Amino acid sequence: MKSLLKRFFCEQTLQCTLAGVIDLAVDWMTDLKEGVCLSAFWYSHEQCCWTSNETTFEDRDKCPLWQKWSELLVNQSEGASAYILNYLMYILWALLFAFLAVSLVRVFAPYACGSGIPEIKTILSGFIIRGYLGKWTLLIKTVTLVLVVSSGLSLGKEGPLVHVACCCGNFFSSLFSKYSKNEGKRREVLSAAAAAGVSVAFGAPIGGVLFSLEEVSYYFPLKTLWRSFFAALVAAFTLRSINPFGNSRLVLFYVEYHTPWYMAELFPFILLGVFGGLWGTLFIRCNIAWCRRRKTTKLGKYPVLEVIAVTAITAIIAYPNPYTRRSTSELISELFNDCGALESSQLCDYINDPNMTRPVDDIPDRPAGVGVYTAMWQLALALIFKIVITIFTFGMKIPSGLFIPSMAVGAMAGRMVGIGVEQLAYHHHDWIIFRNWCRPGADCVTPGLYAMVGAAACLGGVTRMTVSLVVIMFELTGGLEYIVPLMAAAVTSKWVADAFGKEGIYEAHIHLNGYPFLDVKDEFTHRTLATDVMRPRRGEPPLSVLTQDSMTVEDVETLIKETDYNGFPVVVSRDSERLIGFAQRRELILAIKNARQRQEGIVSNSIMYFTEEPPELPANSPHPLKLRRVLNLSPFTVTDHTPMETVVDIFRKLGLRQCLVTRSGRLLGIITKKDVLRHMAQMANQDPESIMFN
Amino acid sequence: MKSLLKRFFCEQTLQCTLAGVIDLAVDWMTDLKEGVCLSAFWYSHEQCCWTSNETTFEDRDKCPLWQKWSELLVNQSEGASAYILNYLMYILWALLFAFLAVSLVRVFAPYACGSGIPEIKTILSGFIIRGYLGKWTLLIKTVTLVLVVSSGLSLGKEGPLVHVACCCGNFFSSLFSKYSKNEGKRREVLSAAAAAGVSVAFGAPIGGVLFSLEEVSYYFPLKTLWRSFFAALVAAFTLRSINPFGNSRLVLFYVEYHTPWYMAELFPFILLGVFGGLWGTLFIRCNIAWCRRRKTTKLGKYPVLEVIAVTAITAIIAYPNPYTRRSTSELISELFNDCGALESSQLCDYINDPNMTRPVDDIPDRPAGVGVYTAMWQLALALIFKIVITIFTFGMKIPSGLFIPSMAVGAMAGRMVGIGVEQLAYHHHDWIIFRNWCRPGADCVTPGLYAMVGAAACLGGVTRMTVSLVVIMFELTGGLEYIVPLMAAAVTSKWVADAFGKEGIYEAHIHLNGYPFLDVKDEFTHRTLATDVMRPRRGEPPLSVLTQDSMTVEDVETLIKETDYNGFPVVVSRDSERLIGFAQRRELILAIKNARQRQEGIVSNSIMYFTEEPPELPANSPHPLKLRRVLNLSPFTVTDHTPMETVVDIFRKLGLRQCLVTRSGRLLGIITKKDVLRHMAQMANQDPESIMFN
Repeated sequence: MKSLLKRFFCEQTLQCTLAGVIDLAVDWMTDLKEGVCLSAFWYSHEQCCWTSNETTFEDRDKCPLWQKWSELLVNQSEGASAYILNYLMYILWALLFAFLAVSLVRVFAPYACGSGIPEIKTILSGFIIRGYLGKWTLLIKTVTLVLVVSSGLSLGKEGPLVHVACCCGNFFSSLFSKYSKNEGKRREVLSAAAAAGVSVAFGAPIGGVLFSLEEVSYYFPLKTLWRSFFAALVAAFTLRSINPFGNSRLVLFYVEYHTPWYMAELFPFILLGVFGGLWGTLFIRCNIAWCRRRKTTKLGKYPVLEVIAVTAITAIIAYPNPYTRRSTSELISELFNDCGALESSQLCDYINDPNMTRPVDDIPDRPAGVGVYTAMWQLALALIFKIVITIFTFGMKIPSGLFIPSMAVGAMAGRMVGIGVEQLAYHHHDWIIFRNWCRPGADCVTPGLYAMVGAAACLGGVTRMTVSLVVIMFELTGGLEYIVPLMAAAVTSKWVADAFGKEGIYEAHIHLNGYPFLDVKDEFTHRTLATDVMRPRRGEPPLSVLTQDSMTVEDVETLIKETDYNGFPVVVSRDSERLIGFAQRRELILAIKNARQRQEGIVSNSIMYFTEEPPELPANSPHPLKLRRVLNLSPFTVTDHTPMETVVDIFRKLGLRQCLVTRSGRLLGIITKKDVLRHMAQMANQDPESIMFN
Repeated sequence: MKSLLKRFFCEQTLQCTLAGVIDLAVDWMTDLKEGVCLSAFWYSHEQCCWTSNETTFEDRDKCPLWQKWSELLVNQSEGASAYILNYLMYILWALLFAFLAVSLVRVFAPYACGSGIPEIKTILSGFIIRGYLGKWTLLIKTVTLVLVVSSGLSLGKEGPLVHVACCCGNFFSSLFSKYSKNEGKRREVLSAAAAAGVSVAFGAPIGGVLFSLEEVSYYFPLKTLWRSFFAALVAAFTLRSINPFGNSRLVLFYVEYHTPWYMAELFPFILLGVFGGLWGTLFIRCNIAWCRRRKTTKLGKYPVLEVIAVTAITAIIAYPNPYTRRSTSELISELFNDCGALESSQLCDYINDPNMTRPVDDIPDRPAGVGVYTAMWQLALALIFKIVITIFTFGMKIPSGLFIPSMAVGAMAGRMVGIGVEQLAYHHHDWIIFRNWCRPGADCVTPGLYAMVGAAACLGGVTRMTVSLVVIMFELTGGLEYIVPLMAAAVTSKWVADAFGKEGIYEAHIHLNGYPFLDVKDEFTHRTLATDVMRPRRGEPPLSVLTQDSMTVEDVETLIKETDYNGFPVVVSRDSERLIGFAQRRELILAIKNARQRQEGIVSNSIMYFTEEPPELPANSPHPLKLRRVLNLSPFTVTDHTPMETVVDIFRKLGLRQCLVTRSGRLLGIITKKDVLRHMAQMANQDPESIMFN
């Protein structure tokens, strides 16, 4: 218990420290693209100006210690040439960061690329990818994550942080023999680590637990729920002590809205849900098509060039538009915000009624000013740009998460819809749909809420999360009252997206990479039987089996050499074929090698036996070899009449890799996980050979 | 899809309507104990005075239309005789309601008693209790729930509402053949219904889903998560349209606190967690001991008398104390509340500094007035009374939930601790623990928050919920910022309670009633093998089996008559004992009965065969009977060497009722769920015969 506690605290402290360091470094390096702090070059813009003497809020942004590159290099802060110089520096820094990142990943840790969530899902389902959760991956992924986020690429750091958390979990569990020796226990630790990862990434402890439950984990026993909960608590506690978001709250995008929502608003919310579903479908289809092209054509041979090109395009297009120039999380934060009286953002440039004086937190709907219209245009352009560039960015050979870009797309669309509804309600109070709830002078529409709903819908469309999505959204924003709008948008977006294809982005990438992953969400409803799926099929050579007491060492060695199966069923004899157990290939090889080296009298002609007692042999025959130790006496069996629905269920719930097929005790064949996957693909009218298993 | 949608909406509307009607009826009948509305007797106190002309807030309570019993009967509103008359009427009404409730339950629906959650857990694990989810249970439970809650007994309506929701779910799923014919699908519907039940009961949609996941459901596939989520959404939506809590918010106890919490406060929060854990342990032990006494002694024979006695004691003790006289949910609501400037409650009777003028929502800590000290005494007495009476109330033959009483106990303890800390901080600003965060004149301690944390801790101690508890608490109160205190209290309370015994109240009641429930939370780590558990043991008569083609109809009928097994394994012959399948007792009986009635030539001497082809028989033998149709060709088997750890895992995850044990195809024995449970009890050093299975 004590060591468990210690492990948790170490792990969580390391993770939270990492997350804090990443946040600080990203802030600094993002600002480095714009300028540098004269007092200390390692200060970000905000830190630099914090110590400045300018006390009014507006001036603090323009403190003299912070110098844009144009000011520093040519002593100009305004004008076309200064703009161009800043533009160039922005692009140059972005390219430098991206180049460094992709090179580091290529040279030191190829597994550090991508979001890592598809691979973690696969690992938790029982597949082993060696080195995927190693120390190098941890280190390089952390460093390159900072670089790519700072470079301004359209990607988020939340997905990769889950991978980083799992690496931490793996590292700490390797220190305790209880976990390092038991594959199942290790997987439980990884599930808990994934939960803590999301908790840390977003500051959403409960959301993290549910994300781990709904999206990442394969089999989730209640003990893991409880453990994840504890991990998330420790993470939240550590986070609160370290306080990286700097607002003394746990949440990333804290918002406070002052008006409730109205039934009539459900219509635009559901529309946003539809948009989210469509965006999810579009994104998954295009991204998968592009990744497939990368895998199959020459394009995949130049990952560095690809990253450089995408970074250059991103930087060139992003800089002129204020909504894409800044970091994406700042953008989301601004879009979520309600327009208070002190808000200086362009999005809040409404025309105030000079006669009205009201408390600051209850401003009625007002007509939009010029700034809002400009912002609408810029947002529309930014939206299109984000949609296109994210498709090409996700899947490159750098760490890249999807949460933040998806949320940004949704928040932009949502804010635009919100402003539209608000202006409609303001100018048409008398319309029947507004009459009941929106009197003149009332504050009835909150555009920020639409942004929040849109973000949830888009994230839901891409990942197909439901409960965890809603919990994360209201933990992120503190908007507990808006649970019904969020749920409605999440449900709609999942429905729409599922109508075009059942796979979320993570499953699609698992499929693309050909990992042997048996999705718990798919239902298998066909009426095939185990006998239709098992090997050998009719006409194929018989199954390679061992007999319990009649094969020689040489026979077995030949069998091992000629086949590449993971293991062999052991039967009584070739005639009766009654199954007695299963022997793993690896253990057989090891046992024979050891016996040949250490045991006297073991030659190629020695009889191998799996029974308790040695068989009766002719007097002059060589010493027999007892191998009962390597025999698994309880292999998993089903009868040939078992419906495949049951077999799939057993494979899923028990995490099997293979299962033997018998009829009244006689061995008939074997079904492996890959056979099951191929059969499921075939039944879903897909080409079974499209499942590659690399 | 359409029919699914329709089912959901019907179900949810029915449920929410029921919940709304229950709320209204409880309000009315609770007030009926005090008085009656002259304008319309079916108005509750609030509704009655709503239409009154008194406009100021204080006077509204004393509107002339609402007459206390003493005013109505003897025209006195003050004085000792009026008090005594009111007291008597209060007791009389309570007794009347309780008597009606217990009689209705006894006569019409014995299954309507208790919270129903232990039974639903058992049903979802695969056990069938006929009629438990029937229409009568639904109707009677709804009616008696109103009666018992109104009678002022120390019980809540949330648990029984989950049972009511499951009855609804069962009713609607029986209308659709897709669900009524498939046991597994039906269980999924019930899980979703349980989620919707909690959602409706508390107005906590996400919490409901998680409660269903963590506490109620046995095996929770992701599809059920998604379906529960949808059910909860529809419930939340319907609830919002119907709006029973009357505050246009979804939540039951909405609170708004204006101050953050401080690290130093974690210490009292954790103390409250310890209190919650201790209360949970105490409650479970005492309640189970009392319920066991009820089961085994004469006490159990007088359920009506018991209910009457407990109601009388409750009413007599409750009336004089203002904190127990009112309904428990009002009490919790008041305890959770922060003391605003307009609060007239006794708990907010602080001594104001006359020189201070501040905005209403930021009142500094003040010294407690006389009212607060009186309230503390009354709360302490109420706490002791609640603790004792709840132990005797839960488990009587009436519908009774535990959520609200547990939360009340915690809230009372929490509020007292909170006021204590507040006064300590006010009077000792200079102590080192307060110096850093609590300057004079600051609003640093919120006693309402302590009440909330205490409520969570006590609920956690009794039910052992973790994630769902925290989510329900913050959905109930809207207190998202206080997630770390809530989590800390939940974790502590679970730890403390688990240290004294692993079982939550629901598992304890399952155990007490001897339901065959295989808990998914227990871990089985012993090294026993299937061969140690299977029947027949050494020395026992051999297993009753059928042979595939050599038994006559009469043999089988004798076997069925002499044994009471649920089914029989079918083997090739008594000599080889190779297993070919499993035949259910019920289906065998039916098939033989049908054959004897309808098939010609079937006599007692007819050979029964389970093979494809009839066996070769002597020329003059009677017509054989083919029974392959009733043979399950894919019975679940394990080998005798399979570790029990694996067997338990298989039973749990696949929801088996029995499993056959073979060795190289030969049938050795059978393991049933009850054998597994007995073995687990034995391994845990409990008396295996204490598991009764009634």
